[in-house]
Amino acid sequence: MNEFSLIKTYFEAIASPREDVLFGIGDDAACVQVPEDMDLLISVDTLVEGIHFLKEWDAYDIALRAVNVNVSDMVAMAATPCWITLAITLPIIDPSWLKRFSLGLSDALRFYRIALIGGDTTKGPLTISLTIHGVAPKGRAVRRKGAKAGDAIMVSGTLGAAALAVAYLNDINLDDGSKKILMDKLLCPKPRMDLIPLLRAHASAAIDISDGLTADLNHILEASQVGATLEFARIPVHPLVQQIQKENAIAFALGGGDDYEICFTLSKDAVQYFADPVLNCCCVGEIESAFGLRAKTLSGEIVPLQARGYTHF
Amino acid sequence: MNEFSLIKTYFEAIASPREDVLFGIGDDAACVQVPEDMDLLISVDTLVEGIHFLKEWDAYDIALRAVNVNVSDMVAMAATPCWITLAITLPIIDPSWLKRFSLGLSDALRFYRIALIGGDTTKGPLTISLTIHGVAPKGRAVRRKGAKAGDAIMVSGTLGAAALAVAYLNDINLDDGSKKILMDKLLCPKPRMDLIPLLRAHASAAIDISDGLTADLNHILEASQVGATLEFARIPVHPLVQQIQKENAIAFALGGGDDYEICFTLSKDAVQYFADPVLNCCCVGEIESAFGLRAKTLSGEIVPLQARGYTHF
Repeated sequence: MNEFSLIKTYFEAIASPREDVLFGIGDDAACVQVPEDMDLLISVDTLVEGIHFLKEWDAYDIALRAVNVNVSDMVAMAATPCWITLAITLPIIDPSWLKRFSLGLSDALRFYRIALIGGDTTKGPLTISLTIHGVAPKGRAVRRKGAKAGDAIMVSGTLGAAALAVAYLNDINLDDGSKKILMDKLLCPKPRMDLIPLLRAHASAAIDISDGLTADLNHILEASQVGATLEFARIPVHPLVQQIQKENAIAFALGGGDDYEICFTLSKDAVQYFADPVLNCCCVGEIESAFGLRAKTLSGEIVPLQARGYTHF
Repeated sequence: MNEFSLIKTYFEAIASPREDVLFGIGDDAACVQVPEDMDLLISVDTLVEGIHFLKEWDAYDIALRAVNVNVSDMVAMAATPCWITLAITLPIIDPSWLKRFSLGLSDALRFYRIALIGGDTTKGPLTISLTIHGVAPKGRAVRRKGAKAGDAIMVSGTLGAAALAVAYLNDINLDDGSKKILMDKLLCPKPRMDLIPLLRAHASAAIDISDGLTADLNHILEASQVGATLEFARIPVHPLVQQIQKENAIAFALGGGDDYEICFTLSKDAVQYFADPVLNCCCVGEIESAFGLRAKTLSGEIVPLQARGYTHF
C-alpha cells in the first residue's frame, strides 16, 4: 500500500459530500464555494504524538479530538464549520490504526456536517494537522478584541475536568466511573455549536478555553486593551474536580487547559439571553478599564491573578 | 521565549497585509473575504525533516521551498494564491534557525503577494505544513479530470534537474557551477505563475510535476479516463541532466520528482497560445482514447511506459 491507495482506502470514502464542495480529494487542490454574504474563517491545529495525545490512545479518539479541537476554534469565532483538510504524517502504514482513525474522523465530520476536502500524507513522526474552514455573516465573526469595561465575563460548561484527567491518567485509586467521565472530557471535548448564533448576536469578544481560563481570558484582555476581575465563587468548577481536588479545585479550573469551553464577554443587559439553564453558561466576572487580571477570592479579598497556562516551550 | 513570543517575533511581523484579510494572526481563526465571482481553492503540503529536506539545509531555503511547493499546487489549478496558514512543529526554539526561516517565508510570501494569516506552533519533530488558499473565477479552476482524446500534452520548463540534484547531493566530482544550478532547482522550484491566465483560458487538465512526469501524467489519465503516448524525442530534458546522465537522461526526466513544472493538456488548436518561446512550454505527446501510458522511443518504437514516481511508503 502506498500513499495513493492509503488515501483512497481510508480518506476518500469518508469525504462527506456537501453541495458547496465543487471537488475535493483527488486534485492538486480542493474547490469550494463561499456564500456571497459570508466571510471565510480559517484555523489550524496540530496534534503531535507524545504532546497532545499518547501512543496508546485509540486512533478513533485521536481523530475525534483533532476534529473537536478544530471545531472549537470555529465556535469561538461564532463561525459555522464547513470544510477541513488533513495533513497527516505517519511513521508506518498500520491498517488497523488507520481504520480506527478514519472511522473516528468520519463519525466526527458527519456529526458536524463538515466535509473532508483534501490533505497531504507524508512519512515521519506521527503528527496530525487539521485546517478547518468556516463561514460567518460578513463582519459578524467574534474576535478576542472587542471586550469593553462593564461587560460581563461568561463561561460555558464546567472547567477543570480535562486537566484533572491529565493529572490522574495513571491513578489507580480513582474509581472506574470517575475515570471514564474525566477521560471523556479529555478525549472528547464537545464544542458548543449551540452557542454560535447567540455569540454572533451578543458577544463582544470570545475565545475557546484550550490553555486555561486565566491564560485564555488574558488573551481577550490584551487584545481588547482592558482588565478584569474574576469571582472565585462563580467559577463553574467540574463536580469531580471539586470532589477530588478540594483545596486546589479553583486552581485546576482556572489553570487547566483542554476543556474547550468558551469564554466570552458581552454587555450586561445581554446576559439574560444566556440565562436558559440548558445553555449551561454563567457569569464569572467583569471587564474593567484598569489593565491586569484580578480575582475576588472566596473570602471577598481582591488579589492579582497570574495568567498562567500551558506553553509548549 | 514561549510560543506566543515566538509567533510575535518571527511570524506576526511578516504577515504581509492584503485588503481582503479582515484579521489574521492573533485570534482563534483568521478571517478573509473571498470575492463574489470566485471559487476558493485549498491545498496543503507538509515537509518533514529527513524526508523532504535535510537538517543541514539553510532554514531560509526550507521556507522558500515550502511556499513554492504550495504555490505550485495553485498554479496547477490555475488559481491565484492569496492566503497561507503555517502549522510548524519544532523540536526546540532555535532563534537563529527561526530568524532564517522567517526571512525566507517573508521573502517568498512578499514575492507572491500571499498573506500569512495564521497557524499553529507545536513542539515535536521538525515538520512544516502549509495550507494555501487561492481563488479562480467561478467554474474556471483546471482539474486533473478533463483531458480528451486528441488533446496535446504540454510540459513547462525542463525536467530532471531536481532529481539529479538529489542523486548528486554528495558527489564531489561535480563542478561547483553545475552543483549550484542543480541545488537551486531542488531548493527553489519556481512555480509558473505566468501560466495561470493561459491555463484558465485553454487547459483541459493540469497537474504539477512533483512525483515525476509519468506518475503525474498518469493521475491526469486516470482522472480523465483516457490514455496517452509520450514522445521521448520531445521531452524537455534539462541540459545538465543530458550532459551528466546521457544514457539515463530520459529516465531522470520522466521519473524524477520535485521539478514543480506543470503538465497540462489542451486541444491542439490551442497549442499556438503557448508557442511564445518566453513561455518555455512544449508539446510532449498526445492524449488517446486507449487506456494506458505509452512511449514513442527515440528509435520510433511504441512501448508501454510504467508510471513510476516517488511514493512515501
